[in-house]
Amino acid sequence: MNDAASSPASSFTPKIEFWFDFGSNYSYLSVMRIEALAAAHGVRIGWRPFLLGPVFRDLGFDNSPFVLQKEKGAYVWKDMERQCRKYGIALTRPTTFPRAALLAMRVALLGADRPWIAAYCRKIMQLNFADDRDIGSIEVVSEALDELGLPARQIIADAQSDANKLRLREQTAAAAAKGIFGAPTFFVGEEMFWGNDRLDDALEYGESQRAARPA
Amino acid sequence: MNDAASSPASSFTPKIEFWFDFGSNYSYLSVMRIEALAAAHGVRIGWRPFLLGPVFRDLGFDNSPFVLQKEKGAYVWKDMERQCRKYGIALTRPTTFPRAALLAMRVALLGADRPWIAAYCRKIMQLNFADDRDIGSIEVVSEALDELGLPARQIIADAQSDANKLRLREQTAAAAAKGIFGAPTFFVGEEMFWGNDRLDDALEYGESQRAARPA
Repeated sequence: MNDAASSPASSFTPKIEFWFDFGSNYSYLSVMRIEALAAAHGVRIGWRPFLLGPVFRDLGFDNSPFVLQKEKGAYVWKDMERQCRKYGIALTRPTTFPRAALLAMRVALLGADRPWIAAYCRKIMQLNFADDRDIGSIEVVSEALDELGLPARQIIADAQSDANKLRLREQTAAAAAKGIFGAPTFFVGEEMFWGNDRLDDALEYGESQRAARPA
Repeated sequence: MNDAASSPASSFTPKIEFWFDFGSNYSYLSVMRIEALAAAHGVRIGWRPFLLGPVFRDLGFDNSPFVLQKEKGAYVWKDMERQCRKYGIALTRPTTFPRAALLAMRVALLGADRPWIAAYCRKIMQLNFADDRDIGSIEVVSEALDELGLPARQIIADAQSDANKLRLREQTAAAAAKGIFGAPTFFVGEEMFWGNDRLDDALEYGESQRAARPA
């Protein structure tokens, strides 16, 4: 549909990089919201799963701040209840938090550029934060892929390849190198936005980049 | 104007408690915004200055997380630039951060129920975050009060009374007892909202309380 030669302006679609972890509760809100919002703003999504645990450890924290600080932890679930109500998103406080989801994350990395990535991420997040299922298990990841009509066995085998495992470690190191200290984090070009509360600002900034670009 | 006997519904004005510290950058945003927003929502403000430093120390932090975590600290000033632009609020990154402002805080406590509290808080915040002045000094606090046409010498003497000093320590202990772990924090009844990002939600909740109250 686009013709770069005759309409250079319309051929540029701004991109938002979406750095997230399935264990992160505020990433849940963004995973559920981002596809529709980004489409409304005419912004592409670059899905960037990374492991928040090693990033926290590099910063000197051996767990989520929502676990390490009990006052903040108590507040966060109140805030999540209100935020989920506001956005019309289901919430059941997970009995395990934060949930490690290494295989689910490896599958997300494998699928980051495939058409099923958004639906897959929503499915995994719903299983964790609405259904309180163990998204760290191979059974639950398989079930999620099955429900999306995807070849679960093949995808899981590919996700567990040494090359893909290494890529996830590299992507996590890249997150730290970019100055990421929490999730979700968004980048539009060099501009960093932290937290679901900044998703709309990040998308507005992305949209403004398209307008700002010379034709 | 109100007649509680003949119009009980209109005599109830919901209140938002606003817990803040002049050294806190996100408190700056709320101090500059809250009076107009609260009026628009028909919500009264209970001004609750407290000392964030002792609260952080009780939680095991010997400084602001924006100082202790350099990645977060670097981000926060980018975020502040964008937020201030969005709200039309001036910003000069203070050369000292966080600024201790004990006297200014004691004056805020003294004035919490006086008609000048909102204007005084905005003035001190502007001096810190827009003019990069040392709000910890008696000269700057005097200047702020002078500019508001207030009796600076008397107010400062009252603020430094033993009784008022004790009250600020007690209010700080009360903040910790309420589960406050950062600033700004808002309470509407028992509902706690943390951060300038939740000011609008807190006010909407406050407004809904008026509507919900039986006439």
